[in-house]
Amino acid sequence: MNGARSLIQSLVKAGIEVCFANPGTSEMHLVQAMDAEPEFRGVLCLFEGVCTGAADGYARIAGKPAVTLLHLGPGLGNGIANLHNARRAGSPIINLVGNHTQDHEKLDAPLTSDIETLAKNVSRWIKTDSTAESLAADGLAAVSAVMQKARGSKGQIATLIIPADACWGPVTGVAPITVAIPSLAQSNADFAQIAERLTASSLILLDKDGLLPAAREAAAKIAKHVGCRVAMTAFPARIDSGPGSPVIERLPYFPEQVQKALHGVDHILLAGASEPVSFFAYPETPSKLAPADCERQVLAEGHQDVVLALQSLMTELQSDSAEPDRYQAAAFEVPTGKLTTRWVATMIAQQMPEGSILCGDSGGGAAVLGPAQQSSAHTWLNLTGGSIGQGGPAAIGAAIAAPNAQVFALLGDGASMYTIQALWTQARECLAVITVIFNNQRYGILETEYLRLGVNEIGQHAGALFALTEPNIQFADLASSLGVPGRRVDSCEDFQAVLAEALHRTGPTLIEVML
Amino acid sequence: MNGARSLIQSLVKAGIEVCFANPGTSEMHLVQAMDAEPEFRGVLCLFEGVCTGAADGYARIAGKPAVTLLHLGPGLGNGIANLHNARRAGSPIINLVGNHTQDHEKLDAPLTSDIETLAKNVSRWIKTDSTAESLAADGLAAVSAVMQKARGSKGQIATLIIPADACWGPVTGVAPITVAIPSLAQSNADFAQIAERLTASSLILLDKDGLLPAAREAAAKIAKHVGCRVAMTAFPARIDSGPGSPVIERLPYFPEQVQKALHGVDHILLAGASEPVSFFAYPETPSKLAPADCERQVLAEGHQDVVLALQSLMTELQSDSAEPDRYQAAAFEVPTGKLTTRWVATMIAQQMPEGSILCGDSGGGAAVLGPAQQSSAHTWLNLTGGSIGQGGPAAIGAAIAAPNAQVFALLGDGASMYTIQALWTQARECLAVITVIFNNQRYGILETEYLRLGVNEIGQHAGALFALTEPNIQFADLASSLGVPGRRVDSCEDFQAVLAEALHRTGPTLIEVML
Repeated sequence: MNGARSLIQSLVKAGIEVCFANPGTSEMHLVQAMDAEPEFRGVLCLFEGVCTGAADGYARIAGKPAVTLLHLGPGLGNGIANLHNARRAGSPIINLVGNHTQDHEKLDAPLTSDIETLAKNVSRWIKTDSTAESLAADGLAAVSAVMQKARGSKGQIATLIIPADACWGPVTGVAPITVAIPSLAQSNADFAQIAERLTASSLILLDKDGLLPAAREAAAKIAKHVGCRVAMTAFPARIDSGPGSPVIERLPYFPEQVQKALHGVDHILLAGASEPVSFFAYPETPSKLAPADCERQVLAEGHQDVVLALQSLMTELQSDSAEPDRYQAAAFEVPTGKLTTRWVATMIAQQMPEGSILCGDSGGGAAVLGPAQQSSAHTWLNLTGGSIGQGGPAAIGAAIAAPNAQVFALLGDGASMYTIQALWTQARECLAVITVIFNNQRYGILETEYLRLGVNEIGQHAGALFALTEPNIQFADLASSLGVPGRRVDSCEDFQAVLAEALHRTGPTLIEVML
Repeated sequence: MNGARSLIQSLVKAGIEVCFANPGTSEMHLVQAMDAEPEFRGVLCLFEGVCTGAADGYARIAGKPAVTLLHLGPGLGNGIANLHNARRAGSPIINLVGNHTQDHEKLDAPLTSDIETLAKNVSRWIKTDSTAESLAADGLAAVSAVMQKARGSKGQIATLIIPADACWGPVTGVAPITVAIPSLAQSNADFAQIAERLTASSLILLDKDGLLPAAREAAAKIAKHVGCRVAMTAFPARIDSGPGSPVIERLPYFPEQVQKALHGVDHILLAGASEPVSFFAYPETPSKLAPADCERQVLAEGHQDVVLALQSLMTELQSDSAEPDRYQAAAFEVPTGKLTTRWVATMIAQQMPEGSILCGDSGGGAAVLGPAQQSSAHTWLNLTGGSIGQGGPAAIGAAIAAPNAQVFALLGDGASMYTIQALWTQARECLAVITVIFNNQRYGILETEYLRLGVNEIGQHAGALFALTEPNIQFADLASSLGVPGRRVDSCEDFQAVLAEALHRTGPTLIEVML
């Protein structure tokens, strides 16, 4: 047995099932090892950002890591943007990055680069010096590292940079399977003091494990009991919600909107969340968005057991029996005529099957969030790190993790183009992904942000950097060229019909919505 | 005036003309500054790897830097792979990467990441702490840094990571234009001793400035005089050649082929080149490929004046009047019937106009190199760093740098998909780029490398990671969806006709060659 075989075997025994792969020459022994372990599902992606985004989507739904297989520094580089999003989401991912042998690396052959430095940007755990004998154990150490729920700033990503000779070298014994997953640290907050501090002008702010259904349930009961507000941050990694779930506000995106939302709040209780800060810095707006005299208090840090902390506070307040406001199922007006973002969102919410997974990105997709609460139980995955091009890849991972769910990728036209290669993998794996392109033929957010500079109009040269015109992208045709049936729609009636047809089709569809 | 205006104005005055841009919110003041300087050409790319690959192609043709405009860490991350190639090519590039303010960065907003660490992988010059008052001078320091021809291992790339408040803050005076470009260091080799050492079993190996026409001319005369061989490395950044140019061998790719090529050589004279090493490490092949007893001698390092060193050696040998073998113009057989890589290559060489620029990548395109020497004067840009997905973006930059040249992007189907977004920019800028996709529906090199492991056949699961089938990509349709007329051809007659039509068309074309 060689090192590559020992690694893949050990990963399989540790319960790792999926590898999002874009291998090169230095990974051939790992491919050979995968060939011998057919239960380790290799999913080919045509670009590494698709691999890493898919691994993020998989982790958020499966709750366990997938592996990516990447080719030296450039392969990891292409995966960085979606690893950034995954780090923000706290998603466990194991990157296997092939490298030269250590002796060969010194000769500075053309593909040599400083892979470890690249990996530092996104990895909480890195190893570069595996040998054939250590490789299986190193892989299991990577699994342990990412399954620890200590969601620090470095996220849950491990990068195992594998010297080629660690793959092809002989192995005499395979490491026993020992994946150590310590339990979550408990918050040492003073629940009695917090219970006393909460008033009607408090706000409970949720993130990380504070977004779990049990956490939201407890937080909502506390808020109802106290008469205060409860909110989640603007881009939570995953929310399972729908009719019957407690109503939780969501902080808005633009800083002045957040300031408005926090007006009058004199106490923010942080449950897995950090204090609200602006997404970007602006000349005239503070970065910290809570009122100046607002007290911030930590109930539980993001790496702690936020669910237990909220439930302990609920018990302390004897608010278990409080009955918070809940989303109610509602019938929607059936729209007709010209398409708008709001109407498209309504129709998606209306038609989506129970248990659908909705993958957002930049663009109009967030409009589905509201009506979805009143339609049926669903899971929402957000663009967590602001690096657009996540939704399509995440949909791949989500569909593989939940093969019976209908998955939606809700993408802006601009955002979709960073990782448009995702469509091909959706076709190849015959995944139940419906991609909706909200095609407004521009980077709309940039137009908005540019006008916020205080200028009244967008000049010709600036405008050309925001417009996705000349040429217009034909997304339906683009999808078809990559094996995904694509349809372009201009009216609500068309959208209803095309969506219904897509929901009955096996495999993916792309619907291009002209706005 | 704000910092952003002062920076863009100074870059323009320093002769920088082009910006390959994919901006985001943190770059809006820079976009505003570009809007006011219309001679600073902003070229929108839909993915950052297109920006960086285009800047590489531009630099190789124009001999001066373009600027990229990228959005924080994820934007730079997406550009890393083609910056790796540019670093290997020694191409001068200035990356402008927007960042949060330094105060905002500490708050760890969603898009915050360690940009400087990312930049270290590819940059010889980095600055992160500009102020509005320093920004123009910092930009000029970046220009100086990349124009220095000290082509060390860190390449010629400068990354200016710009705090947002350095863009919007007020500037009282703009730095005077001082771009210092020191002259090249001279080699201190002992020309008399080298002249004496050269024998018929010597090999002169060229890279970096040793690839310039004047250097090749001198090297070929020396070799003719001595009766020895002269070769270039396998993936030179740029070669201007064609009928009348001296015949120079090119080292092959696979290590056993290089070993064979170097058999009997007992002395390698390095002119801008490093000693020949294997591209990848293999279990049974040494990484250093020259015969064990072969003497290596440095005529000039890559960062030195290689042209002068070769000319000095030529003078020392009194070989100025030697008449080396030269490529001769030849008529080609006009192929008919089924397409092969060789026939496609012949037809491209035959029809390409004088002064064409050929951008290679992984795939069949290298087959054009041979017949091109016998057709007409041309410039060849290679995939220098092995990070595939360079050719399409490089063609954008080449076409902008040489607006009167016909540019060809010769791409494998697999390679093209890493940066397929390049097509859209080719369409928008109406560039004279003909993309030829050598569509063999697989990562052919990986099949070859896998079989080199010593297995006799490719298993089902491994094969699925090499095959670009199920679904087949429809490249002609894909191109059309992005605004580039696409044609699919199955026969030599079709290819001839479609190529002739493309050569008469204004703007880009894609020809999908079914192999």
